Amino acid sequence: MYGRYTQELGVYAKEEAARLRESGQRRSASDRSRTLDLLEYEKGRCAKCRIYTVRCQKFLISRVGEDWIFLILLGLVMALVSWVMDFCIAICLQAQKWMYGGLDSNVLLQYLAWVTYPVVLITFSAGFTQILAPQAVGSGIPEMKTILRGVVLKEYLTFKTFVAKVIGLTCALGSGMPLGKEGPFVHVASLCAALLSKFMSLFGGIYENESRNIEMLAAACAVGVGCCFAAPIGGVLFSIEVTSTFFAVRNYWRGFFAATFSAFIFRVLAVWNRDEETITALFKTNFRLDFPFDLQELPAFAVVGIASGFGGALFVYLNRLIVVFMRKQKAINKFLMKKRLLFPALVTLCISTLTFPPGFGQFMAGQLTQKETLQAFFDNLTWSKQGLAEEFDYMGHSQAWRHPQVSVFVVLVIFIIMKFWMSALATTLPVPCGAFMPVFLIGAAFGRLVGESMAAWFPDGIHSDGTIYPIVPGGYAVVGAAALSGAVTHTVSTAVIVFELTGQISHILPVMIAVILANAVAQSLQPSLYDSIIRIKKLPYLPELGWGHHEKYNIRVEDIMVRDVRYITLNCCYRDLHNVLLTGHLKTLALVESAESMILLGSIERSQLQSLLSQQLSRTRRLEYIRERSVAEKKRLSEVSNPSSEDSNMRASQEVRFQISTEESSLSPARPVSQKPLKPALKRSSVVERPIEIPTGPHDNSGIALKNLFCLRPFSFSFVGKPSMMPSFLTYFPSPLCVLQIAEWEEKQLDEQVNFNNCKIDPAPFQLVERTSLHKTHTIFSLLGLDHAYVTSIGRLIGVVSLKELRKAIEGSVTVKGVKVRPPLASFRDSGTTGTSSSESEATELHKLWDRHRSISLPREHVPSESDEKSQ
Amino acid sequence: MYGRYTQELGVYAKEEAARLRESGQRRSASDRSRTLDLLEYEKGRCAKCRIYTVRCQKFLISRVGEDWIFLILLGLVMALVSWVMDFCIAICLQAQKWMYGGLDSNVLLQYLAWVTYPVVLITFSAGFTQILAPQAVGSGIPEMKTILRGVVLKEYLTFKTFVAKVIGLTCALGSGMPLGKEGPFVHVASLCAALLSKFMSLFGGIYENESRNIEMLAAACAVGVGCCFAAPIGGVLFSIEVTSTFFAVRNYWRGFFAATFSAFIFRVLAVWNRDEETITALFKTNFRLDFPFDLQELPAFAVVGIASGFGGALFVYLNRLIVVFMRKQKAINKFLMKKRLLFPALVTLCISTLTFPPGFGQFMAGQLTQKETLQAFFDNLTWSKQGLAEEFDYMGHSQAWRHPQVSVFVVLVIFIIMKFWMSALATTLPVPCGAFMPVFLIGAAFGRLVGESMAAWFPDGIHSDGTIYPIVPGGYAVVGAAALSGAVTHTVSTAVIVFELTGQISHILPVMIAVILANAVAQSLQPSLYDSIIRIKKLPYLPELGWGHHEKYNIRVEDIMVRDVRYITLNCCYRDLHNVLLTGHLKTLALVESAESMILLGSIERSQLQSLLSQQLSRTRRLEYIRERSVAEKKRLSEVSNPSSEDSNMRASQEVRFQISTEESSLSPARPVSQKPLKPALKRSSVVERPIEIPTGPHDNSGIALKNLFCLRPFSFSFVGKPSMMPSFLTYFPSPLCVLQIAEWEEKQLDEQVNFNNCKIDPAPFQLVERTSLHKTHTIFSLLGLDHAYVTSIGRLIGVVSLKELRKAIEGSVTVKGVKVRPPLASFRDSGTTGTSSSESEATELHKLWDRHRSISLPREHVPSESDEKSQ
Repeated sequence: MYGRYTQELGVYAKEEAARLRESGQRRSASDRSRTLDLLEYEKGRCAKCRIYTVRCQKFLISRVGEDWIFLILLGLVMALVSWVMDFCIAICLQAQKWMYGGLDSNVLLQYLAWVTYPVVLITFSAGFTQILAPQAVGSGIPEMKTILRGVVLKEYLTFKTFVAKVIGLTCALGSGMPLGKEGPFVHVASLCAALLSKFMSLFGGIYENESRNIEMLAAACAVGVGCCFAAPIGGVLFSIEVTSTFFAVRNYWRGFFAATFSAFIFRVLAVWNRDEETITALFKTNFRLDFPFDLQELPAFAVVGIASGFGGALFVYLNRLIVVFMRKQKAINKFLMKKRLLFPALVTLCISTLTFPPGFGQFMAGQLTQKETLQAFFDNLTWSKQGLAEEFDYMGHSQAWRHPQVSVFVVLVIFIIMKFWMSALATTLPVPCGAFMPVFLIGAAFGRLVGESMAAWFPDGIHSDGTIYPIVPGGYAVVGAAALSGAVTHTVSTAVIVFELTGQISHILPVMIAVILANAVAQSLQPSLYDSIIRIKKLPYLPELGWGHHEKYNIRVEDIMVRDVRYITLNCCYRDLHNVLLTGHLKTLALVESAESMILLGSIERSQLQSLLSQQLSRTRRLEYIRERSVAEKKRLSEVSNPSSEDSNMRASQEVRFQISTEESSLSPARPVSQKPLKPALKRSSVVERPIEIPTGPHDNSGIALKNLFCLRPFSFSFVGKPSMMPSFLTYFPSPLCVLQIAEWEEKQLDEQVNFNNCKIDPAPFQLVERTSLHKTHTIFSLLGLDHAYVTSIGRLIGVVSLKELRKAIEGSVTVKGVKVRPPLASFRDSGTTGTSSSESEATELHKLWDRHRSISLPREHVPSESDEKSQ
Repeated sequence: MYGRYTQELGVYAKEEAARLRESGQRRSASDRSRTLDLLEYEKGRCAKCRIYTVRCQKFLISRVGEDWIFLILLGLVMALVSWVMDFCIAICLQAQKWMYGGLDSNVLLQYLAWVTYPVVLITFSAGFTQILAPQAVGSGIPEMKTILRGVVLKEYLTFKTFVAKVIGLTCALGSGMPLGKEGPFVHVASLCAALLSKFMSLFGGIYENESRNIEMLAAACAVGVGCCFAAPIGGVLFSIEVTSTFFAVRNYWRGFFAATFSAFIFRVLAVWNRDEETITALFKTNFRLDFPFDLQELPAFAVVGIASGFGGALFVYLNRLIVVFMRKQKAINKFLMKKRLLFPALVTLCISTLTFPPGFGQFMAGQLTQKETLQAFFDNLTWSKQGLAEEFDYMGHSQAWRHPQVSVFVVLVIFIIMKFWMSALATTLPVPCGAFMPVFLIGAAFGRLVGESMAAWFPDGIHSDGTIYPIVPGGYAVVGAAALSGAVTHTVSTAVIVFELTGQISHILPVMIAVILANAVAQSLQPSLYDSIIRIKKLPYLPELGWGHHEKYNIRVEDIMVRDVRYITLNCCYRDLHNVLLTGHLKTLALVESAESMILLGSIERSQLQSLLSQQLSRTRRLEYIRERSVAEKKRLSEVSNPSSEDSNMRASQEVRFQISTEESSLSPARPVSQKPLKPALKRSSVVERPIEIPTGPHDNSGIALKNLFCLRPFSFSFVGKPSMMPSFLTYFPSPLCVLQIAEWEEKQLDEQVNFNNCKIDPAPFQLVERTSLHKTHTIFSLLGLDHAYVTSIGRLIGVVSLKELRKAIEGSVTVKGVKVRPPLASFRDSGTTGTSSSESEATELHKLWDRHRSISLPREHVPSESDEKSQ
């Protein structure tokens, strides 16, 4: 009875889990004891100490859940990595300044020092990354987004990549180019999590679970942002927005935990290193709290937001334009492909020449590093008010913004324009680098510009009630930074990041308003920077359903699905399999009960089918056939009883060969799929030996293709080969006559029914209904990370929807240029086969099933149903 | 060919969407023109003005996407509601204070005024809510969580509930009881969204889409928290954590937009009302920014966090205990059921007596409102340092904490203890109320206590480097508030809420650490307050997979699924349907191809089957049968040709009746499912007339049950009914003899095969595989909001998993007390039917299918397969 077992299920699940855990512990305990034994053999005083360590570790692992230990370790490691990297970058930048400062007698030498340093560092970074792991190039967020969608990207989470990314990133940032650390840090954290997971799997079993790994990667992304900016909350939110479409709230927890721990350690390290007195924000601001801004300043903040939106879209567009341009110019491309390091070197040379402080750099505060620039933007002074500001004597970095001849506004405008294209260009360099920080900086500069203008316009503030509250340009810088970075990345959590970065939340409403406006503008113009890179790199992706696209609610799966599904039936023969493999190129194929019923039973991977087919036509089976045949022939020959010496020689070698092959064939049923072929006696024949790779081109008469592979080539070889090699060669293909017989044999083999017994079938592929809306389909695809889904109607397969169709339908983009063609599916709809009403069509479908059922007992009359038409 | 249509799909989808949109517009345009026509008839000067308004509205709706208009409207309305409510509450509280202050000559009068006021308000609130909409009682967050899971709760989103909630909440909070506004506000915002959605659907079509409504509800929850605390970010995050398991990042956007707008308007209203000079935080703090806290204070913060964790768990436990106690005590229960308003009145009396300022209230700052108390806790002074603090003269609300005889520590401890049980008790009152704010207050008190202790312990601060940084107890209060409210609600976003509430983020790390520790402790001890209420109210829910439950990764669906699935086959007869309906009580039943193949075709709702069955045995068909039979009998009778007068009379009435029934039967094929029965001539016979509601009890011989309904009751009636009524009554059941014939007829009907043509079938119910892990199952269930899923193996139905099994497996809770029974599924596993290996079992399954296929052509031999055994 239904529900009979449910009450005791809890007990069972608990016991089962306990059993598994126990066995795991036992196993790990035995491992541990083996380790202990090994340690005994070790000589030295610390052996006992180690034993205790191991025991302690064992206790730790067995007692407390591994989840939080993993997260703490991850946070710790990432905080250390981040801190060490920051330390190295600071040293690099200091060294450049020191060199530049020391050579102030000669401008040329100064220039050389200023320029050579970054060129060398960037070139090294590019070269190192190229050699060790080219996957480390770039931000890493687009790849992480893809990986978290469930796609496996090879080599993206290896130790090599980790090393390349960390060292490459340190060098790239140490060069002083307008590059960021935040995007790559997401990748570094994920790498770290993946490696830590592998390392931890030595101790426990759960680290091998795939869904757990994905969860941990999601947490790692949060850690990456969190420990980069010491912004745990912003880190979690930013990583969610950037990498996920759907987010599990339970992961959120993990992210918070790890990111907080990481940010904490990161800042504690700064305190221990006496950089800071206590734990504070990274770019601490000191705006007044009692009256942070006036209500009447809000329109100015809104303007900052809207302008940032346009700026962000422009940045993404510019970035893509550069990449596409570099790719399209074949002459440049060829040249650069040869000298891979030339492009980064040239770009670096160009950028660093322009920022040379005694040169053009004096108009754009070229001598300041990114950090110093940002601190200058966020400071509490007003640069434009000459009278009052003079008193403060332009302390520290603000000094750089005062130019004797040029107003601060001009400097800011030049800074914004120059940095804009420089950042867009620099982020296309083949080094590990992010775009967040440069964009953040430009945004801050723009905000500062607006703020300074406002301060110049209203020197005594806007407030009319007597009390003078002067305008704070630093607040505008904060708003601008959040807005522009939000526009480029299409996130709102940059707002939270700036609060955590500056340690002040007093400007929350202006920041939120600006960020939302910037997002609204940017999202309607361009994809986010990461999505743009995903499209450039052609990674598998699914576009978001944007705002206000309410027409998406009206499109149904039946409008977008492909009705002409490739399928195989349960009782098909190998020839059908072969035909299906030849004509389609999908990764998975639907398995239906029969062509008439079309009841979906499951889906099979293409590779499984290929191995099935190659097994059926395998050498072992062929050889077995030949042996049988030859035994029969032998009998016939012995009856004729007049063999020539050459013939017997040949036969002897055949017999030796056959013995080996017999062994093979006796083995093959046990592990039949991916068998390594025996090393061929003749090297040339390896061409023949390779497993069947059926060409996926548009072959129509398929039988010939196979014959090409198996039969026709040996012909040519048999004439090419030297006479002395003939006998061993003929072991495989005894004679031209025999080859023909093999072809015949193959034809026979192809007509046999397929035996799916050893085939791995996914018995529950995801199914949709015709009436499922596009909106729901999108949700399901992105929720479950699907690649395709079958559309069924009462068990009957009627179509398939893959990521491609969905993408097309959502984007509504037309790749067919020129003539507007009538949508081919319209005809389907017009003819009314399925389009009318759901219940009606369902009834029709059911009728067919019904008829089929009746026809089992009755003499079957062939009704030319839809499914029959399709199966042809 | 696969992919043939994909290129032009985009075009098609676009055109299709455009067509649909256009037709929608056309429709709405015609609606609009009708409205215009109507308006023309209206007399008055503003008609033209209205036409312009309508046109303008039309333009707005057609031009800009409705999404953000909806969100802005929602934000605006909620901000207004929140502000007006706050205003009313403030007036109520002021009135109480004024009454209390005015009567300071007589303590008894003062006491009466102090007590009567809240009792009246709470009683009114309880009564009003009870009468208008009992659904408005309580927080609303548990219900919203359930609704967002996809469950339809009736009456929870109606206008009545809205009115009841808003007015009830205002009164409840105006009484000064320790109740919160935040939880109910989530509900109010959702109500507002639902009503607004209904209102907007008058203009456009998309507002009727269900998934869109759910998205809007999710955004509304964010708005609710956001405009309650003027905390947009915290609001979004809190609402996500509290209501969702999986969250779509696209909703996040909506939430941010609406919540920011709402918070903005909410604060702007305060500025316009001259309450504030500019937009600032609700409970603004003014801690020092340069050195917010010392690193060495972190252990103290951690202690606050851990203690809050225990406190939070205790609060949830206490709250549940009170509810369960009230329910279990039948004597109390009965009494309270009669006098529903007595319980709230008594509780209010008790609580307000204890807080009476001249009485016990003097030891717990009873005269302060919640808001004043919180402001006092967050202030920048140190109460315990008598020497220094004397200078400040205990300004404002801090005055209340100084008691001439008792130390401030004692006052704080008394406050915490008293408020703790008061809040736990008060939140069980049948009025609209939340627990967040009271808990937040207790947390702040606890934090303040620790902070004051620290300040007393280290009067010159901990920092050793010369500069004296005194300890800020207000910072501890902030940490405590976030930690305790986080522990009770199981959220980390309370951290963000306190930053936004206080306008300072300088304590970010202590707050984060404390909140995370509090959560870790509380989550391991108790469910969250909302989950606790969900369980008490027995709403459908799915528990979360907690931390470190890594054994969950090892449990598979095959361990928890119910193997004995109730199913119906495509070629079953009505008797089978009847049997299935009698024995099970599931909402949906699986439809399989046949009992042998067990190929899952879809699922059918129970109600559909019931209507199928009742249609088969319907009165119209029965009457038709009777007519046919009577016609036959007539012939027979006319042959006998000696009718009595009574007989002819009866026959005449039968004939009239038959005419009607003929009309009926000619109609029935067109719309057969839910047909309203004709009004019966005799009222008594409605018992017979009602649609078949098959009893779900454990009936074994099912046939009798139906006979009870159809045949046996008329027997008794025919003797009870008066003679004059007999003829019309006999129209239905002409004679006892005839009843027997009807039973015979029904038996015959039951043996007919079911015709599923007009039945609504879900052709793609969600399917899992045996090897799906519990973890993945949980993910899928919570992602898609499933109620149950079928477990299939290559198309064959082998089990079903419902929410119940999943819940049991996750909680591992044993409801069977006493003897430990062997889990019944263990035997399944031991016998090795499925337990061994996936590929092997799959192969077996396939073999069966295979055999079946062969047997179609060959003479079938019955193999007693697993499925056959189950189908019995």
